[in-house]
Amino acid sequence: MEQITPDATRNILEQDELDLMNRYWQAANYLSVGQIYLMDNPLLKAPLAAEHVKPRLLGHWGTTPGLNFLYVHLNRIIRKHDADMIYIAGPGHGGPGLVANAYLDGTYTEVYPEITEDEEGMQKLFKQFSFPGGIPSHVAPETPGSIHEGGELGYALVHAFGAAFDNPNLIVACVVGDGEAETGPLAASWHSNKFLNPIVDGAVLPILHLNGYKIANPTVLARMKKSDLTDLFTGYGYEPFYVEGDDPEYMHQRMAEVMEDCYARIREIQETARADGTVYEMPRWPMIILRSPKGWTGPKFVDNKKVENFWRAHQVPIAEARQNGEHRALLEEWMRGYVPERLFDESGRLVPELKALAPTGNRRMSANPHTNGGLLRKELNMPDFRALAVDVKQPGEVMASATKHLGMLLAEVMKLNKDERNFRLMGPDETASNRLQDVFTTTDRVWMADILEYDEGIARDGRVMEVLSEHLCQGWLEGYLLTGRHGLFSCYEAFIHIIDSMFNQHAKWLKTTRTMPWRKPISSLNYLLTSHVWRQDHNGFSHQDPGFVDHVVNKKADVVRTYFPPDANTLLWVGDHILRTYNRVNVVVAGKQPSPQWLSIEEAIVHCEAGLGEWRWASNVPDGEEPDVVMAAAGDVPTLEMMAAVDLLRQKLPEMKVKVVNVVDLMALQPKEEHPHGLRDADFDAIFTENKPVIFAYHGYPWLIHRLAYRRHNHNNIHVRGYVEEGTTTTPFDMVVLNRLDRYHLAIDAIERAGGFGERGAAAINYLNDMRAKHHDYVREHGEDMPEIADWKWPYPRG
Amino acid sequence: MEQITPDATRNILEQDELDLMNRYWQAANYLSVGQIYLMDNPLLKAPLAAEHVKPRLLGHWGTTPGLNFLYVHLNRIIRKHDADMIYIAGPGHGGPGLVANAYLDGTYTEVYPEITEDEEGMQKLFKQFSFPGGIPSHVAPETPGSIHEGGELGYALVHAFGAAFDNPNLIVACVVGDGEAETGPLAASWHSNKFLNPIVDGAVLPILHLNGYKIANPTVLARMKKSDLTDLFTGYGYEPFYVEGDDPEYMHQRMAEVMEDCYARIREIQETARADGTVYEMPRWPMIILRSPKGWTGPKFVDNKKVENFWRAHQVPIAEARQNGEHRALLEEWMRGYVPERLFDESGRLVPELKALAPTGNRRMSANPHTNGGLLRKELNMPDFRALAVDVKQPGEVMASATKHLGMLLAEVMKLNKDERNFRLMGPDETASNRLQDVFTTTDRVWMADILEYDEGIARDGRVMEVLSEHLCQGWLEGYLLTGRHGLFSCYEAFIHIIDSMFNQHAKWLKTTRTMPWRKPISSLNYLLTSHVWRQDHNGFSHQDPGFVDHVVNKKADVVRTYFPPDANTLLWVGDHILRTYNRVNVVVAGKQPSPQWLSIEEAIVHCEAGLGEWRWASNVPDGEEPDVVMAAAGDVPTLEMMAAVDLLRQKLPEMKVKVVNVVDLMALQPKEEHPHGLRDADFDAIFTENKPVIFAYHGYPWLIHRLAYRRHNHNNIHVRGYVEEGTTTTPFDMVVLNRLDRYHLAIDAIERAGGFGERGAAAINYLNDMRAKHHDYVREHGEDMPEIADWKWPYPRG
Repeated sequence: MEQITPDATRNILEQDELDLMNRYWQAANYLSVGQIYLMDNPLLKAPLAAEHVKPRLLGHWGTTPGLNFLYVHLNRIIRKHDADMIYIAGPGHGGPGLVANAYLDGTYTEVYPEITEDEEGMQKLFKQFSFPGGIPSHVAPETPGSIHEGGELGYALVHAFGAAFDNPNLIVACVVGDGEAETGPLAASWHSNKFLNPIVDGAVLPILHLNGYKIANPTVLARMKKSDLTDLFTGYGYEPFYVEGDDPEYMHQRMAEVMEDCYARIREIQETARADGTVYEMPRWPMIILRSPKGWTGPKFVDNKKVENFWRAHQVPIAEARQNGEHRALLEEWMRGYVPERLFDESGRLVPELKALAPTGNRRMSANPHTNGGLLRKELNMPDFRALAVDVKQPGEVMASATKHLGMLLAEVMKLNKDERNFRLMGPDETASNRLQDVFTTTDRVWMADILEYDEGIARDGRVMEVLSEHLCQGWLEGYLLTGRHGLFSCYEAFIHIIDSMFNQHAKWLKTTRTMPWRKPISSLNYLLTSHVWRQDHNGFSHQDPGFVDHVVNKKADVVRTYFPPDANTLLWVGDHILRTYNRVNVVVAGKQPSPQWLSIEEAIVHCEAGLGEWRWASNVPDGEEPDVVMAAAGDVPTLEMMAAVDLLRQKLPEMKVKVVNVVDLMALQPKEEHPHGLRDADFDAIFTENKPVIFAYHGYPWLIHRLAYRRHNHNNIHVRGYVEEGTTTTPFDMVVLNRLDRYHLAIDAIERAGGFGERGAAAINYLNDMRAKHHDYVREHGEDMPEIADWKWPYPRG
Repeated sequence: MEQITPDATRNILEQDELDLMNRYWQAANYLSVGQIYLMDNPLLKAPLAAEHVKPRLLGHWGTTPGLNFLYVHLNRIIRKHDADMIYIAGPGHGGPGLVANAYLDGTYTEVYPEITEDEEGMQKLFKQFSFPGGIPSHVAPETPGSIHEGGELGYALVHAFGAAFDNPNLIVACVVGDGEAETGPLAASWHSNKFLNPIVDGAVLPILHLNGYKIANPTVLARMKKSDLTDLFTGYGYEPFYVEGDDPEYMHQRMAEVMEDCYARIREIQETARADGTVYEMPRWPMIILRSPKGWTGPKFVDNKKVENFWRAHQVPIAEARQNGEHRALLEEWMRGYVPERLFDESGRLVPELKALAPTGNRRMSANPHTNGGLLRKELNMPDFRALAVDVKQPGEVMASATKHLGMLLAEVMKLNKDERNFRLMGPDETASNRLQDVFTTTDRVWMADILEYDEGIARDGRVMEVLSEHLCQGWLEGYLLTGRHGLFSCYEAFIHIIDSMFNQHAKWLKTTRTMPWRKPISSLNYLLTSHVWRQDHNGFSHQDPGFVDHVVNKKADVVRTYFPPDANTLLWVGDHILRTYNRVNVVVAGKQPSPQWLSIEEAIVHCEAGLGEWRWASNVPDGEEPDVVMAAAGDVPTLEMMAAVDLLRQKLPEMKVKVVNVVDLMALQPKEEHPHGLRDADFDAIFTENKPVIFAYHGYPWLIHRLAYRRHNHNNIHVRGYVEEGTTTTPFDMVVLNRLDRYHLAIDAIERAGGFGERGAAAINYLNDMRAKHHDYVREHGEDMPEIADWKWPYPRG
């Protein structure tokens, strides 16, 4: 093993200050251990007894002393420079540390008044941790000062950058654990420096914490040669500063000096760029590499097994402290080693000379309003989306690209909020490919590396963020939203599954915060899923998956919304709507290809506000009569095929009474009791009938419609067509045929489910089958769809 | 922009060889362009006419010439050194290039005899590409020599390492596009070198292709300073070799020399380690950085817009070649620039002097059996799982950890296949945490960095792979399976969502290959999901998500299987079973905590083979009578709560006739017509009745049960309890209470759905509600579950 030679230190701390800082650190460590172990006797005024120890010991000690060490040093920088800083704890398992620090600086008691700054409060603080009815073991929404849970590893740094964008005065200190550093998203996150502008954005100070071990293994980064480590982070574009060791005295001196150096470096980069008014070259931002023992200051051995500086320190180093007297004595010795009586006064209050080390008011990292983004959030200035509408005089007559019009809306939003700089658009290299290119009339893609003279649409201060990583797009946007701003993530539909798990964590965060009055609402996380399953015919099977919506609806109904606008004007309404909402996840699925436009903007507004409804102009059911069949669709391509099917039915079986229904808001299918957008049963029955067959053409996997409509009276009669996992590189129409979502299948379904319609019905079915076969042959010979399919238009003018 | 100064070259190629190689490259390029554009006139014997051009132009030119350039150079190395190599094309969009090369070396015609090596075959080759009924536009399962689709970017390098493990003679050349290099999984994949052993494993030769642009943006890596690029890859632990430029003559010379140097370096590393018989230090493997223009040798400008060496070269550089004569002339000029008559003879056959450049037989990368892993796959030597069973004399009497017993099975598998080295276990630092630690009695975790004297369970030649990246675990295993080996991935249940999208791609691959006779079956992709939602009570809400199964069932029924064994012996059967299957994805959900054991091994075998069944010993329905209620469960914790609920009902309402059913194989709930494991309707009705209430306690989100049983006669009477997205850090029992899956809720459900049972029923419900309230108070005071809950055991001995 390579011998690490720690760097020399200039010893910038006076001994007094060092001692105070060390005691502050000890106080945080003491409170951390107390939270993990104790339910009573918080100040150890009595000898530690079994009943003082919690019956279930849950928590993670290993990472905590390092997090606490950094906290006291960041506090020092904040006080000294009046810096505006927040703290992101990638090792979110270190929950007790972040809670301890929020308690030490007073924020915790302000937010949770029952946790007072005295012995009784400390007892409650200890007991509540990881206790039923208490607080979670990780950094969580409940933790003041947190925008990052850290339970699922990988996203600390990308959240940090998201928070720093468009916050020029903010410095985000971001601790990256060496476990987390092994994940893919984190490994890519380092490249976020290529997108951070020192003039308009704030700074991120990454702190790689080489804690040495994971749950049961060494970490990859801690075992790399130091020269490789330096090369790696230099290669990523940073200037690494090392703080390595285990002697607290040395480590305080060295960390204080490195923090000062990093702070100075950050300010120098910013001041130079801001004075120049431009950025000539991507800055080399500083970062800190802290190598310290896992479970630092904890027990070195337990039961003769190595604990400190080993993976056994990961969770609860002394496991049997309640039942086993020897273990309990070890715990008591450990806690008394922090000398609690020098940290807290008799009443349990932090002694004044330590209290003075914490910043005050909003400068406390636990109280910084950026970590409670709703406090800072301003409503977007919104354009009138009606002005961007497609002029639809007759349904199906005009062709337009829906996302092109959404791009026009987003361009206006960019324009109207240019000065606020509080709106960003994210996408994995697909903004133009997804036809949102109008935004480039007002802004560019941000790009901090070299720009060549023939490059197009990239600039230092762009507010479109493109990188070929869905993880980065998602994480940046989360960080941006959590700190009170707005945005939209446009993505190929199939590949949004890459961030399934990140969505989970964000949805869980929102679910939790919705019931916490002190957390103010943040803007919704908005997805535009385009280049969708039905029009990935050119990329083929690997690009075809409409299942993200299925994943999303497993989360709490309060949090999720899903929209399938069938054309440009409905998409405009949806785009306008979602940008005004908060504390939600909105998923919008819409195609980019030119397609028939069905509704005028006024009709679109009525239709979208209801969420679903009959398209009476397309139905042929006489007033007061019941339909033979209800033809419903959700999604643009299903709507097109459904309308073409209705046309075929009208031609071949004009006597059939067809009711046409379109669904924009999928949640409207659910009962009112299950989802806030759900239709009342009576309203649902009025539209879908109580007993008529419903042919439902759905954009995604068919089962979701059954699931949502499961409790409806007519659910047994709903027959759903959707994507059944068939696809390849072929024509757009051949794709729907492969999945039986095409007009011929739909029309045949309708005739069969409506009773067959005798000989005329049979003849119609024959015709439809023949046509499908004819197309099959045609497309395989000519390589494109038959003109009568490709050029089909809804032929019935509105009365 | 930094000026790149290409390295000097030793000019190792004779001019003849260089010319031949250049022509071979031109042949591949010609065939690539032909595939994208032409449906006829493949040799351009006639002037190019509109009808020769496909109506829909689909494909990706930009990356293709680079892929072809590398192919000819790898061919040279293979021939010269008789090397065993395969080619992974990260930029899978370059499908035409890989198809072209397989055609040039003869493999394509061997696999697809109708694509002959003559003009007619070439015409078919061209036409079928991206054509309905033809082949996909990407590298795909249909492409000989491919184990990697490359449609979804991020996994090329991790697949390459997976292929190289335990294949000591194999060299995997892996092209990483600079777009893909921006993704998280790829950024982490470089660290795979920390897990590759030069003695027992083969080598990976990563080739970073700085193509310069993505769809509409420069790439991050191509715009980095060259010194940063060098530092980055040195930091990752590689020795980078650069090949940069656009002049073919120079580039051939430089690439030939770099390839020779890299090959020599690889062999030197391997030979040293193999001679020493040990690895003293992690080797510094070579890698290549190829910087060449996007769309190299294609049109430089189209319609006065820059194309070559710009993002416009990404897809089809000349868009209107069919309709627009000028465009068509440009296309013709481009294709004729390769001088096809010097590449192919009059009949359309590759000229002999070029044919001679390709390797022959299995040395052809397109025919290498490692890329059709089923050819090499050997069945695992399997132990008798019965010997590892828990001795269960009375149901519920013994406690055991299910995964501990699976670990014993896996240890035996490791032992019995030690010499074959064809089985690996993957996990993100959780093998021991998931109680599979018995495997460490026979093997270790592989670790190539320094090992300290107090480290435990890590070794150079371990066959357990642990890294804190689900992406790497998944990708390594995929590469390992696709090259004919076996494995299992054990993962915390919640975080398996991290690889949702990778699962999608693998399932799609399997679905496609199942219908391709020349692709031989590979071993199944096996997941053990443990540390599951109900026992993540210590980590809390962020660690609680049972939705992966919902995601999985959207894929083709042929491919997916899901198992919820309720105890250790059923898990043993499942573990044995899945390791014998092929071409599937098996998802097994089982807890690691000690819990009651229900079935003897003989009972477990019968139960698991059926997939589900009544536990008659737990029912109290007299022979020939109908039950009042069916109590069904799937999953270990639901089974426990269900059994406790049945006990409560027996105590409080002994007159109630309760039928107890347990489900191991979730797919058995589906109709036979929808899934191969589905029960016939009559069998389903016999178990679940046609009209009695069914209370179903399910491990995951409740809707899945409705979905699977949707077409069953009794589905309207099935009442499902499961995870409803409620959780925090609390006790195990409190977790089930929060989600209403606890014994009290289940018993109340049963009474209510079975008609209420009058006053006695009402009294029972009161009692159950009181008990739940009592627990609520108890747990919040004491921090642990009431002893009567925690210590509950099934009290009824079997007759």
